[in-house]
Amino acid sequence: MELMYINTVWIVLAAAMVLFMEGGFSLLEAGFVRTKNAVNVTMKIFVDLTVGALAFWIAGFGIMFGKDAFGIIGTTLFGSPEKMAMSIELPSAAFVLFQMGFAVACVSIVSGAVAERMNFKAYIVTVALICAVIFPLSGHWIWNNDGWLAKLGMKDFAGSGAIHAVGGFAAFAMAKRLGPRKGRFNSDGSANVFAPSNIPLASAGAFILWFGWFGFNAGSTLDASNSNLASIALNTMLAGASGGTAALFLTMKKFGKADPSMTINGVLAGLVAITAGCAFVSQWSAIVIGVISGVIVIYATLLVDNLKVDDPVGAVAVHGFNGVFGTIAVGLFDTSQGLLTTGDFSLLKIQVLGAVVVVVWGIVGGAVIAKVCEMTVGFRASEREEEEGLDMSYHGIPAYNELERFTDIPTSLYDFEETTGISVAPIRTGKGRIV
Amino acid sequence: MELMYINTVWIVLAAAMVLFMEGGFSLLEAGFVRTKNAVNVTMKIFVDLTVGALAFWIAGFGIMFGKDAFGIIGTTLFGSPEKMAMSIELPSAAFVLFQMGFAVACVSIVSGAVAERMNFKAYIVTVALICAVIFPLSGHWIWNNDGWLAKLGMKDFAGSGAIHAVGGFAAFAMAKRLGPRKGRFNSDGSANVFAPSNIPLASAGAFILWFGWFGFNAGSTLDASNSNLASIALNTMLAGASGGTAALFLTMKKFGKADPSMTINGVLAGLVAITAGCAFVSQWSAIVIGVISGVIVIYATLLVDNLKVDDPVGAVAVHGFNGVFGTIAVGLFDTSQGLLTTGDFSLLKIQVLGAVVVVVWGIVGGAVIAKVCEMTVGFRASEREEEEGLDMSYHGIPAYNELERFTDIPTSLYDFEETTGISVAPIRTGKGRIV
Amino acid sequence: MELMYINTVWIVLAAAMVLFMEGGFSLLEAGFVRTKNAVNVTMKIFVDLTVGALAFWIAGFGIMFGKDAFGIIGTTLFGSPEKMAMSIELPSAAFVLFQMGFAVACVSIVSGAVAERMNFKAYIVTVALICAVIFPLSGHWIWNNDGWLAKLGMKDFAGSGAIHAVGGFAAFAMAKRLGPRKGRFNSDGSANVFAPSNIPLASAGAFILWFGWFGFNAGSTLDASNSNLASIALNTMLAGASGGTAALFLTMKKFGKADPSMTINGVLAGLVAITAGCAFVSQWSAIVIGVISGVIVIYATLLVDNLKVDDPVGAVAVHGFNGVFGTIAVGLFDTSQGLLTTGDFSLLKIQVLGAVVVVVWGIVGGAVIAKVCEMTVGFRASEREEEEGLDMSYHGIPAYNELERFTDIPTSLYDFEETTGISVAPIRTGKGRIV
Repeated sequence: MELMYINTVWIVLAAAMVLFMEGGFSLLEAGFVRTKNAVNVTMKIFVDLTVGALAFWIAGFGIMFGKDAFGIIGTTLFGSPEKMAMSIELPSAAFVLFQMGFAVACVSIVSGAVAERMNFKAYIVTVALICAVIFPLSGHWIWNNDGWLAKLGMKDFAGSGAIHAVGGFAAFAMAKRLGPRKGRFNSDGSANVFAPSNIPLASAGAFILWFGWFGFNAGSTLDASNSNLASIALNTMLAGASGGTAALFLTMKKFGKADPSMTINGVLAGLVAITAGCAFVSQWSAIVIGVISGVIVIYATLLVDNLKVDDPVGAVAVHGFNGVFGTIAVGLFDTSQGLLTTGDFSLLKIQVLGAVVVVVWGIVGGAVIAKVCEMTVGFRASEREEEEGLDMSYHGIPAYNELERFTDIPTSLYDFEETTGISVAPIRTGKGRIV
Repeated sequence: MELMYINTVWIVLAAAMVLFMEGGFSLLEAGFVRTKNAVNVTMKIFVDLTVGALAFWIAGFGIMFGKDAFGIIGTTLFGSPEKMAMSIELPSAAFVLFQMGFAVACVSIVSGAVAERMNFKAYIVTVALICAVIFPLSGHWIWNNDGWLAKLGMKDFAGSGAIHAVGGFAAFAMAKRLGPRKGRFNSDGSANVFAPSNIPLASAGAFILWFGWFGFNAGSTLDASNSNLASIALNTMLAGASGGTAALFLTMKKFGKADPSMTINGVLAGLVAITAGCAFVSQWSAIVIGVISGVIVIYATLLVDNLKVDDPVGAVAVHGFNGVFGTIAVGLFDTSQGLLTTGDFSLLKIQVLGAVVVVVWGIVGGAVIAKVCEMTVGFRASEREEEEGLDMSYHGIPAYNELERFTDIPTSLYDFEETTGISVAPIRTGKGRIV
Repeated sequence: MELMYINTVWIVLAAAMVLFMEGGFSLLEAGFVRTKNAVNVTMKIFVDLTVGALAFWIAGFGIMFGKDAFGIIGTTLFGSPEKMAMSIELPSAAFVLFQMGFAVACVSIVSGAVAERMNFKAYIVTVALICAVIFPLSGHWIWNNDGWLAKLGMKDFAGSGAIHAVGGFAAFAMAKRLGPRKGRFNSDGSANVFAPSNIPLASAGAFILWFGWFGFNAGSTLDASNSNLASIALNTMLAGASGGTAALFLTMKKFGKADPSMTINGVLAGLVAITAGCAFVSQWSAIVIGVISGVIVIYATLLVDNLKVDDPVGAVAVHGFNGVFGTIAVGLFDTSQGLLTTGDFSLLKIQVLGAVVVVVWGIVGGAVIAKVCEMTVGFRASEREEEEGLDMSYHGIPAYNELERFTDIPTSLYDFEETTGISVAPIRTGKGRIV
């Protein structure tokens, strides 16, 4: 029985850490976008954690872990995930909570790529669809014992493919369909950069994400008696460290400056890339995977720019490209089946197939969501909303209202309302003024 | 023995998470108040964690868990909480640390409601009194096995009543006695809104609070072998998610904007409301409780406004009203004794009694504190201090000093001193200037 | 076997908490320095976590825990720390990860003291040298069973000496060698103060550090069956609380204001000072140690100022002086061998010797690093770089770009480039403009 107790505590704590990563996503994105959209990205993360968590609990969990039909979809446990029969020593409620963190993480990846120009209601629809259907369906293929990719032998320990690549390529499809932010690309094909609004905030987000990743990867053991548990955590650390190191040195060499957003994304790239293989590769392989991911993230960012897809936070490069790389890397570095470690091609083929599937599925999912939104609540913010900033347009409040002490610039919400005619959040105002 | 080891690790980690919630309170409040008082709310949280923790350790713990007298008060363990004889497999030191987190949380609830106009020394007195006497006394009634409410059968698993309602209504009494911030209410009875200064900061606080709440509620098992542990954590998540969802959609419907502070407070309301019942209700009940709490928090906020009580962060609505609701909700939804689940009225009556007691006790406690402060160090900040902002008045430094690069507005502390005659924190200055 | 599982989970979680402290260092320092250098301190922490972690893994761990030579240095395990034979029930990978957190923490102490005027490449060199050599070498003496100080009986449970004093005095030597920031000291010997740029950010860092410290100290048990584990955590809390209380009240009395940075540093001082003795002293002793540390930190700060050494965040006072005090305090308060508790002088003599050794070693290490940097990449930033701020000079981006909504002050990076001729981070720009 003791193992049951240990596992319960372990997975509840790991789940809390994974869910805390939402705070990391929120700060990272709020720091990377322009000030006038920082509240909006934060609110989107709250939608992930609220609407998304409920959608996954009610529908998604059953699709993912319910009784299998045709290797494609789960058909039970809707509205009652806790009834799942567990084959390991772990209460079903702990497993549900942990998986909920994964569903929410998947949609949070999307939130960054569509930042600064998406209709807020469309984002709510997006969250519901990804957490209830898109993520659980491919999750079923890979992580349900009866899923078709699982049966082929695909190895994706904590979700480089199942979470990050699906989210990253859904993000790609949606960002492409949304079109770029106004002023992002010039008519001659060149790209402008919108400078991040708050680097310390973004870095705080990165530190929280890194912390949570130990729960994300090591928690995926679901079992404290897994003899790889500590090695998984160490691999996670080493890959994040080497991803960041590679990106740091590459930006210094290539651009003459140690670029903060690229270094942060290098760390995240390493963490994404090791997520599939953390339980299957050696420490040295983790470092190599990390270094490669840190290079990939920079060139993938430039590639996405060249495709004229506007991804304000680099989510496609971090999660999409490195999710794919991480999935494939298992086929290269797996200690017992990897091509480079054993000379055996068979696992690599399966991993490549799995990677292709999640990319295609992510893109299809993103396209479907875009279509659904366009036919219902609208997909893109209006030109006026984008111009004024989504914070005032959808939430009636700016991110920072810090200047009242120092300036006589009209920063009060009331003045804003007077001047622009856009109404501000009227709650708690009674009949009085907002000052 | 293994269970003892698991419990030790579990409760030390849970306690660390609960204590980390203080960082959440700090950022939430610093983001919700006006810039000129952001340092002051932060410093108040440091007082909670320093003075408050010591006051609880020296006196409060004994009152709460010492040998009972008359079902009212503990009489032993002063200055030596670790001597407590434990009836469960847990070192007393772990129990003390965990309960310390609760005492500190209770007073932090107050800190938000009295923000922006309270004398700093009065706040230190408040912390000492709440952590040493007010919270432990009602805590004794509910959580000491010999307490009179405990003997009646009141169920309050992790403290909707014992912590949140007591703190929330003490906050109400003190905020009422303090009077509103200057300019908050107009002579025609209408209310003005002071816009939050920093929404990303406030949201960071909310994410930390949510993370810590898993330790708060699931840690209250004190025992990893509690078969409800994982279910408690899941209920916590679901109630927070549904509270936030309800508040989000209600503000969108009622006000046309997705209001950030109300959504955040909706999440917190759900977390507060499930705190009493997390171990006793089903997952669906947790969702229902969360949804109701998300509605309550909005109307309670408007009610507090209408009562002309100025609560800058909504602490009374979040912790007071939903603490009461959560306490009563156990009587409705408890799987073995709830009115709605079993048709039995008996538990509900006890829970309502308990709720009335904590409300009255909170109000009495708050009123006593106000009186003590008025008779000693003074309760409310002077008009001049409030006008200049409590940051400069009590701490000699503004929250943000970011503008020096960009503007020639006089932001330096030295200029401030020159212009206003208010002295700035002179430490580390030697004889030189502050620049 | 269950104990092995518990320990694995415990130390992986504790290591994650220790590594998360880097986020705390980052926010604390970014909040304490001037805005124009906030990105740079953040990037330095990323260097700690990336380059530093790898350097320790490849070389440092072997020096510290490899097979001993002459009580001075380890000689095995280079590039393969996981091959360490463990004498306790813990996987070597968990031990490696935990110790990696310590190495990274040691160099992060330095980062604060050298802020705002150090060459960024020199900092990378510093990180590599401290994590690969300086910290592991003295760590070997104290924590390797065959180290010469360990054999003498020196007691330093979680590293007041081995981590904080070494880091703090290396910081002192490097800060002295670097010289003060421009304008910090006047020709008449008086000191000017550069006001912290962001107090809420700094406080967020302090809360994260406090949270992580529970992993730092209690995790140093390496074993959940250690009967002191909970007491260690409680001592950690009490010392932090009493350090903060002492500093708070002392600044109120001495300067008439409750100084935020001193209160924060008082908390940290208490945490540093209890780190050596947390497993060896009573709760009351922990409180006394905390109170003394809160006084020490204030006078040590003034002393460092008087020595004309410029330490922007107070790292020398917090980590250096209180690391020494904490090491010596074990000799005074140890329950079985302390002078004050048993009248026995013998342990105190060893602790004083150990303290002297780590101070000397820290200063020597810092001086060597300075010399190496001066002879290679350069040690101090150029006058121009310092004047413009290290953020633009080394990273091409300001910390905050928040003002675009509110002002027509030229805040865009493009304008900056135009006006100053300093190039901004060109990555992701393609041929377009930065706006």
